[in-house]
Amino acid sequence: VTGEFARIAALTASLPPGEGVVVGPGDDAAVLRPRPGFDLVATTDTFVEGRHFEVASLTPEAVGRRLAAANLSDLAAMAAVPRWALFSAVVPESAPPAWLEAVEGACARTLASEGATVVGGNLASAPGPIALTVTLLGEVAPGRHWTRAGARPGDVLVVSGEPGLAASVLRRAGVPGAWAVAEVPAADLTRFLAPVPRVVLAQALAATGGVRAGVDLSDGLAGDAAQLARASGVGVVIEQGALVRGTDALRPGDDYELLLAVEPARLESLLAAAARAGAALTRIGRCTGATGAHLLERVDGSLEPLPAGGWDHFG
Amino acid sequence: VTGEFARIAALTASLPPGEGVVVGPGDDAAVLRPRPGFDLVATTDTFVEGRHFEVASLTPEAVGRRLAAANLSDLAAMAAVPRWALFSAVVPESAPPAWLEAVEGACARTLASEGATVVGGNLASAPGPIALTVTLLGEVAPGRHWTRAGARPGDVLVVSGEPGLAASVLRRAGVPGAWAVAEVPAADLTRFLAPVPRVVLAQALAATGGVRAGVDLSDGLAGDAAQLARASGVGVVIEQGALVRGTDALRPGDDYELLLAVEPARLESLLAAAARAGAALTRIGRCTGATGAHLLERVDGSLEPLPAGGWDHFG
Repeated sequence: VTGEFARIAALTASLPPGEGVVVGPGDDAAVLRPRPGFDLVATTDTFVEGRHFEVASLTPEAVGRRLAAANLSDLAAMAAVPRWALFSAVVPESAPPAWLEAVEGACARTLASEGATVVGGNLASAPGPIALTVTLLGEVAPGRHWTRAGARPGDVLVVSGEPGLAASVLRRAGVPGAWAVAEVPAADLTRFLAPVPRVVLAQALAATGGVRAGVDLSDGLAGDAAQLARASGVGVVIEQGALVRGTDALRPGDDYELLLAVEPARLESLLAAAARAGAALTRIGRCTGATGAHLLERVDGSLEPLPAGGWDHFG
Repeated sequence: VTGEFARIAALTASLPPGEGVVVGPGDDAAVLRPRPGFDLVATTDTFVEGRHFEVASLTPEAVGRRLAAANLSDLAAMAAVPRWALFSAVVPESAPPAWLEAVEGACARTLASEGATVVGGNLASAPGPIALTVTLLGEVAPGRHWTRAGARPGDVLVVSGEPGLAASVLRRAGVPGAWAVAEVPAADLTRFLAPVPRVVLAQALAATGGVRAGVDLSDGLAGDAAQLARASGVGVVIEQGALVRGTDALRPGDDYELLLAVEPARLESLLAAAARAGAALTRIGRCTGATGAHLLERVDGSLEPLPAGGWDHFG
């Protein structure tokens, strides 16, 4: 069903009409026209109240922007271009309609800023925490997507932005639902509330060439680096001196940044391409042949295991 | 994210590999290869515990089959062929993993029986009711999709199966969570627990030609007929004598059957095509030029307004 969600039609009416939308919200399904010769890329992320956000801490606009960012980041990590989205909500009957409309509006505007149109969704009521799900569809030229699995020993690890920013904000803000926002530097808070999608950066890097593997940083650098290492069958070393957020970078946190393994010979070209795209890209480590070894290199050159884990909702 | 859902990889390993799956579960997103020249069709449906199912009344297999059927029905109502699905779950940490695995398994098998592969998903924990969301992607030849909007005055309304079967089962079973299944005829219960997807029927009818509008029956015949009428700008008359389930057909209920407006000259060909496809297709009414008039024609020929509404989760 995309039909019972009449608000989506009203919502999208205020946004530029999406390209390739043959049938939009309001029917049993949306009909979309892919660009000929492209592969389709599909991801989905759910935000649950009390886990991914607190109504008392975050404005609905921030929830919507971060929900969009979570999905956009997944597509950026595949080198894909966003095209269409479905928005589903499970909310208590007591929830103010204006709250959900504000979330949807901010989410749709953030998606639209990166080229994706909301084409449908679903609305259900239930007691209990609010759950918001976005499914995002994008496109990539065949064979040009990145995966987690392509890294090789000797590859350089680079990150966009500042991993650990989200963990830093959450640590300083303190108690969920009763944030001490005065403790959070204003610039950090702004970036947390409206993460910069890395879609344009990913396209610039893909055009440059030399990216061998990519993963979105949504569980903390330590956990996501380990995921990339496992999928690629390599070891990883994270260089602590390169972590501008210090140990916050190693804690679980939803940064929605990119961690990429790149061919050493292309590193300078990729850093230059990122600079032209106006995005920070920083070398923070390297891949090794020591499969299974996920290490932190301290500033004094000593090695220790990376903190295990990352964010496991059932951990 | 499609990655934190490692169970999906295990699950799909036991099913035939999906066609057109370039990157399956386990990365930031799935990469899919559409058939050249086809449009993409996308729908999403959420089942919420206590609203769409009760754990005490339905086996996990039945929940999974009905969740798949809800989405398959949406694609059938667009004349689309299912291809790929994403499965997202929000469940309490106390939920037995085996329950969710059984739901997913039944859902994936039902989708696979109609040609769709589960390519990713998401898992989150939260206190409160279980919420299960499937996003289903399919394909249709450009311009060959059905919408709710194409019906014309004089068109004949036909339905697959027996609208009202779901409402009949729910009425007889009685108290949610403490069903008196002995009160439900065994054949009805079987069809309720495992609705027959109408994908093959829709393809047979689309190949025959003459279908002008379609809607999936997921809110009860009265409500869904009104939706079709409003979208098409026509009136509708439902003929009570054709409703084998009597007034149960007019009550809200998730039948996952098709309601189609067809060109009168093609009615016989369409009924014959349905018979060849092994599916019941029954004339149950007609479209009129009286826009806004949604009527029930009693057996004595008198007309009265159709019960308003249908299933509105916020009604």
